[in-house]
Amino acid sequence: MKEGDKFEIKYTVTPEIYQAYIKFFDDRNPLHTNEAFAKEKGFSAVVMHGGILTGFLSNFIGEQLPLKNVIIQSYKIAFAKPVYLNTVLQFKAMVTGVFESVNCVVFKYSFENESTVVSKGEISIGII
Amino acid sequence: MKEGDKFEIKYTVTPEIYQAYIKFFDDRNPLHTNEAFAKEKGFSAVVMHGGILTGFLSNFIGEQLPLKNVIIQSYKIAFAKPVYLNTVLQFKAMVTGVFESVNCVVFKYSFENESTVVSKGEISIGII
Repeated sequence: MKEGDKFEIKYTVTPEIYQAYIKFFDDRNPLHTNEAFAKEKGFSAVVMHGGILTGFLSNFIGEQLPLKNVIIQSYKIAFAKPVYLNTVLQFKAMVTGVFESVNCVVFKYSFENESTVVSKGEISIGII
Repeated sequence: MKEGDKFEIKYTVTPEIYQAYIKFFDDRNPLHTNEAFAKEKGFSAVVMHGGILTGFLSNFIGEQLPLKNVIIQSYKIAFAKPVYLNTVLQFKAMVTGVFESVNCVVFKYSFENESTVVSKGEISIGII
């Protein structure tokens, strides 16, 4: 991988992922599970858990790169807009740094829905 | 919530969570699923997905705070040491900033196993 390398993948927040996330991490906060509460707070429906997007990051690093001998070192993620159930997200990432002395690669990434960036951040991985 | 408020919770990386994470996010990277590969790379067993820890963060913010009208704005997470299956993690968080003008609360947090900090970071939430 080299600076400027770009990746694009579609990820969908399916009902199966949403329900599994609730079941296994037990986050039933009303924003995520109570339609009336979410609407009262100005959202158009229950808001998907941000952690679901970090699951997609996990898939990106673990499965979509041209090499498998990688480990995530750290990441930042910001949630700019709500993500709703069944949204198809366009994930875009670009290599912004390759540090061969420490076997480290840094990416900037974003998730976009049909109209806008909903989340973005940076992720550092090690080559092991 | 006010600056200095502290929280402690135990989270366990159970086989059910690990298997669900693999199933729903489809990250079968050999580091997470191939014992021989993980050992060859210097780990004592397959390494749990870092995203599992962000699921625990989701549970902390969504379910363990004294108020439910919250939304995660952003976080940083660094993975300092590997986490293995069935590890009991001691999660510790402290409020490090309360910004009433923008209804924002910031926490520093860490996850520790029996002997050391395995992961740490910072999380910003909005009060909605």
